[in-house]
Amino acid sequence: MIFLAFNILTSGVAFSMVCAVIGLAAAFFLIAAVVRSPSGNQRMREISGAVQEGAKAYLNRQVITISSIAVIIFILLFIFKDRPTAIGFMIGAFCSLSAGYIGMRIAVIANVRTTQAATESINKALRMAFNGGAVTGLLVVGLALLAVSIFYTVVARIVGSHMAINSLVGLALGASLISVFARLGGGIYTKAADVGADLVGKIEQGLEEDDPRNPATIADNVGDNVGDCAGMAADVFETYAVSLIGAILVGALTLPDNPAAVIYPFVLGGISVLGAILGVLFVNLAGGKPANVLMGGVITSAIVSAVLFWPATHNLFPTGVMIAGQMRSPTQLYWASVVGLIMTAVVVAITNYYTSMHYRPVQKIARASETGHATNIIAGLAVGQHATALPVGFIAIAILLSFHFGGLYGIAIAVMVIISLDSFGPITDNAGGIAVMSKLPSEIRNVTDQLDAVGNTMKAVTKGYAIASAGLAALVLFGSYVQELKMHVTRNGQPFVFEFSLTDPKVIIGLFLGGLLPFIFTAFSMDAVGKAAGAVVREVRRQLQVHPGIMTGKDTPEYGTCVDIVTKAALREMIIPALLPLIFVVAVAVIPQLGPVALGGLLVGTIVTGLFVAIAMTSSGGAWDNAKKFIEEGNLGGKGSFAHQAAITGDTVGDPYKDTAGPAINPMIKVVNILAILIIPIFF
Amino acid sequence: MIFLAFNILTSGVAFSMVCAVIGLAAAFFLIAAVVRSPSGNQRMREISGAVQEGAKAYLNRQVITISSIAVIIFILLFIFKDRPTAIGFMIGAFCSLSAGYIGMRIAVIANVRTTQAATESINKALRMAFNGGAVTGLLVVGLALLAVSIFYTVVARIVGSHMAINSLVGLALGASLISVFARLGGGIYTKAADVGADLVGKIEQGLEEDDPRNPATIADNVGDNVGDCAGMAADVFETYAVSLIGAILVGALTLPDNPAAVIYPFVLGGISVLGAILGVLFVNLAGGKPANVLMGGVITSAIVSAVLFWPATHNLFPTGVMIAGQMRSPTQLYWASVVGLIMTAVVVAITNYYTSMHYRPVQKIARASETGHATNIIAGLAVGQHATALPVGFIAIAILLSFHFGGLYGIAIAVMVIISLDSFGPITDNAGGIAVMSKLPSEIRNVTDQLDAVGNTMKAVTKGYAIASAGLAALVLFGSYVQELKMHVTRNGQPFVFEFSLTDPKVIIGLFLGGLLPFIFTAFSMDAVGKAAGAVVREVRRQLQVHPGIMTGKDTPEYGTCVDIVTKAALREMIIPALLPLIFVVAVAVIPQLGPVALGGLLVGTIVTGLFVAIAMTSSGGAWDNAKKFIEEGNLGGKGSFAHQAAITGDTVGDPYKDTAGPAINPMIKVVNILAILIIPIFF
Repeated sequence: MIFLAFNILTSGVAFSMVCAVIGLAAAFFLIAAVVRSPSGNQRMREISGAVQEGAKAYLNRQVITISSIAVIIFILLFIFKDRPTAIGFMIGAFCSLSAGYIGMRIAVIANVRTTQAATESINKALRMAFNGGAVTGLLVVGLALLAVSIFYTVVARIVGSHMAINSLVGLALGASLISVFARLGGGIYTKAADVGADLVGKIEQGLEEDDPRNPATIADNVGDNVGDCAGMAADVFETYAVSLIGAILVGALTLPDNPAAVIYPFVLGGISVLGAILGVLFVNLAGGKPANVLMGGVITSAIVSAVLFWPATHNLFPTGVMIAGQMRSPTQLYWASVVGLIMTAVVVAITNYYTSMHYRPVQKIARASETGHATNIIAGLAVGQHATALPVGFIAIAILLSFHFGGLYGIAIAVMVIISLDSFGPITDNAGGIAVMSKLPSEIRNVTDQLDAVGNTMKAVTKGYAIASAGLAALVLFGSYVQELKMHVTRNGQPFVFEFSLTDPKVIIGLFLGGLLPFIFTAFSMDAVGKAAGAVVREVRRQLQVHPGIMTGKDTPEYGTCVDIVTKAALREMIIPALLPLIFVVAVAVIPQLGPVALGGLLVGTIVTGLFVAIAMTSSGGAWDNAKKFIEEGNLGGKGSFAHQAAITGDTVGDPYKDTAGPAINPMIKVVNILAILIIPIFF
Repeated sequence: MIFLAFNILTSGVAFSMVCAVIGLAAAFFLIAAVVRSPSGNQRMREISGAVQEGAKAYLNRQVITISSIAVIIFILLFIFKDRPTAIGFMIGAFCSLSAGYIGMRIAVIANVRTTQAATESINKALRMAFNGGAVTGLLVVGLALLAVSIFYTVVARIVGSHMAINSLVGLALGASLISVFARLGGGIYTKAADVGADLVGKIEQGLEEDDPRNPATIADNVGDNVGDCAGMAADVFETYAVSLIGAILVGALTLPDNPAAVIYPFVLGGISVLGAILGVLFVNLAGGKPANVLMGGVITSAIVSAVLFWPATHNLFPTGVMIAGQMRSPTQLYWASVVGLIMTAVVVAITNYYTSMHYRPVQKIARASETGHATNIIAGLAVGQHATALPVGFIAIAILLSFHFGGLYGIAIAVMVIISLDSFGPITDNAGGIAVMSKLPSEIRNVTDQLDAVGNTMKAVTKGYAIASAGLAALVLFGSYVQELKMHVTRNGQPFVFEFSLTDPKVIIGLFLGGLLPFIFTAFSMDAVGKAAGAVVREVRRQLQVHPGIMTGKDTPEYGTCVDIVTKAALREMIIPALLPLIFVVAVAVIPQLGPVALGGLLVGTIVTGLFVAIAMTSSGGAWDNAKKFIEEGNLGGKGSFAHQAAITGDTVGDPYKDTAGPAINPMIKVVNILAILIIPIFF
């Protein structure tokens, strides 16, 4: 029996490693194809070089800033927890940072080639953007799967599988924490540079977007790379690694006697890489409308995954499994995974409805712009809040169903399926980023606009199910927290079972404090964008005053100092919001009147309000952006009209909403939950 | 023993009735003094008459609209619950509506006299506004105390005190539901008329505020009355009555053997009326700076209450009382009330900090206006989110402490104390409304601005602790829900104890669905303002097109049709958001997969997110308003500057935030909790 278990264990994890390697190979094959394509003229390569240099400089400094905090946490884990957990933390942090580098490098390579391809045809440009995204997606997902499975295998060999599973929590913390930093730092950078460049360049000096006379223009382009690409790639790594680890943890805690429960998530992760590769193949071979081709890719990926899940589930659980006192058949577990599948499709459709310019919500914002800035803002805020209703309703249904099929483990499986489609998600998201960033010449404006619109929708849709999966993953982690508490805490030598009842004022207080976290986290993030943008504005004004020749084209602006200033500002401003979750968790844990029960409330409170705040912010942001685009297409007076002015205001408000504060909530709610699991043996 | 109990019971309730009557007498004395003051010239009286007529017409139609819904609920309660509850519901609804009428009538009387007094001195104007507010405050609070105590005494005589306490829940539902309607309908009316009048009048036609050529100008003034005054008065009645009933309920449920537990809240309520009267006296006798005089009034009221609470507590609980298995001394119960006192002071100070133009947050928004509309909005939204942190933190501490001193009953006592100061609160709030509404001639601009600023701060501060008390009151109601469930639901003939554990997915789903409610409730409310404002815009445009003589002063605008249109629009648009809480509660109750446990989660979820959304919205709104005022005082370029334009945008966005959606959340979270208590015997 033990031998058999060991066999399943090894072969399952080995399978996921093989899949990860296949994913990496596919990525290298694609990147070779991308690199072979023409990279544009001398001028394009120069700009691209400058942007790459700035982005690298930023990421290097980000590493230094984060490293000091990471080292402190490493030492604390080393002293108060154990060596494998501390090492896991460093590996998670390192891989998350690497994912950021990968995302940035590939974006820079693919951007300039997408621009070049767009001069030939829209489909060529889209394919180039898409393949660039696919490279990052496959590399990062492969990295996540490989890191978790190798770490798990090696540590299990040395100190046993129980300890290995525990130390995976360290890896998860490393991934999540760095992801929060990367999302925040990159988000602050990109929006501060964008807003700063626009405020002085467009409004004060009347320059066009990307005018080389604007000293902040390179910083603006660097921002797109470090925010949309590097930050996003770190986030994808985190989502993948943490969901996988969450499922492993729940499997080990709720089904301690069944090794297959730990292996199943690895296998699902491996399958999803195969699904993603076939989806990529579909997009490269199929022809037709861009949006349809992309949707075809997603559907291919989903179908391949759904089909392969069936034999995998039946192989690992041939006779079913006992969960929470009930026998579940393999088919029931399979149904839990199907819940994840349907959930993803539904959330994609809903987000698309609320953020695409073809439907009522965005058009309502556009029409509200006709009566001014204020009505545009009110309409946008209302759309964001409306957009929370259906996703949350469906999340509730998904929880109910997946729990019905397999208890907490069922929810964990559904999450794995959501993020397994998510391995296709970052591909479209990255492609969107690349498409939006490839500043195409105005002759091919038609191509730009189409690519841009597809890119925007792709980015919004990915954010939609990223937050849905984050909410569910965090719930799984909360379940692990409760299980861990049960195993670790004893009173008078007996295991002590904590109750997390809503009738306990500690739980209520925890819910309030946890509920507060997303609110002040996003408040600090938005402040940070404002402050960093202010620094850019002052520097650009200074340069234009000292060198009046810049405006006449006689003097060259000092692009580097702008890049430098926004780099420092972004890194300085990201510290407070990024440390908030750590401070809250540790404070609630150490205050004796609060303790483990209030901490449980805090975890759930953060998930509940975090879900709403994140969905509302990213939806509002996407809808504002596309309302502007809708007007720019010639509706309601078109470019330059009063409505257009108001729509620009909405778009600017939406920028920190959808690109800084909103998406950073995802890793934040997971940091909170992972940290709580980690500190159990330290404080309780 | 029983005889003694009956004595305490009768004398305690009788004491509260006497206090209520004293309060009403004081109100009548004050109103006589107000009416005696000069009411301005012929023109002022004419306008005031037209406004009064419009407001009456609106309130009458509101009664008709709400009545049909109220009658349906009455019939349902009559059939599925019992007669006393159904009658209680009608009394609660009737008193809440009456409170609205009172608020509107007195505001109209006091406005015009405040305007007249301002031509003499700032202190006279302030005192007039304050006394007008005091009349409404004392009348409404007296009405609440009297309604609850008479209803309780009469029903207890007829069907016994147990049944009487149960049927008080009906009275609470009537009060809360009408309050939601009044807040929403009035809020939609006032902001739709305001925004509509501004959009066509100021922006399209370049008219000043209150230009008689603007056909929507009377509607705008009517809006101030039905929103700020009638809606607010209904809300005060609700806060007072429901907090009192909540405390009675918890007393009866957790201390069934101690009749003093039920009487204590009545006594606290009675004392608070005495405190408020002495506070009013202080303001009328003291001289000095307006803000200081008002603060002196609040402090007088608080000290009087705190001093009288001591003997009252020791008299009712001479040897202490057993709560949740622990003996509590009368001094401990007294401490619970002191927690409420300190909590109020703290929340007042915090709200003042975030919304007064003398501190950093408002000035930050003002400075952000210099760089445009978008940065103003981002700064305002961030301030609102920041403003949630400290109040929620202190609410958490207040829960911890008051629970420590007296369990759930301790929290109920703290709430009674908060709202007992609240009987002074509506005085300042109403005075604020009257001050803001009294459109003073520009010769005395200095007086106007001072009065306006004081009024704004007063309104913001009152909203701050109104929402804090609403959050705690709702928690008390949730406690009653749990207790009621325990008493009513049996399985196999045995009482069944429900667990509301965070590890139960039903609780999590409930939290999600409840958390959703404030988000979509406010989303629909903001949409409603937009739609109703659109109707006003179209009507004004129509009039100006059909009668071009209006702009030259040749034709008189048809003010009446504007009033009519916005009345209809406001009443139509309030229905959906007002019914949302009913629909959610009943849906969760009847769906068998959810049921009582998920409903418990829903109640808490609504409280958690409701608290944040309400604080953020009212704080942002107040801060935006005062940021505009800060610039209008001559800072950062003053009136007409670019910064001022941006600040106006912020103020307009803030209008539905702080006057429609935000304050309507208070009664909404209570409706949800009360309804849940009521439907227990029907569905479970």
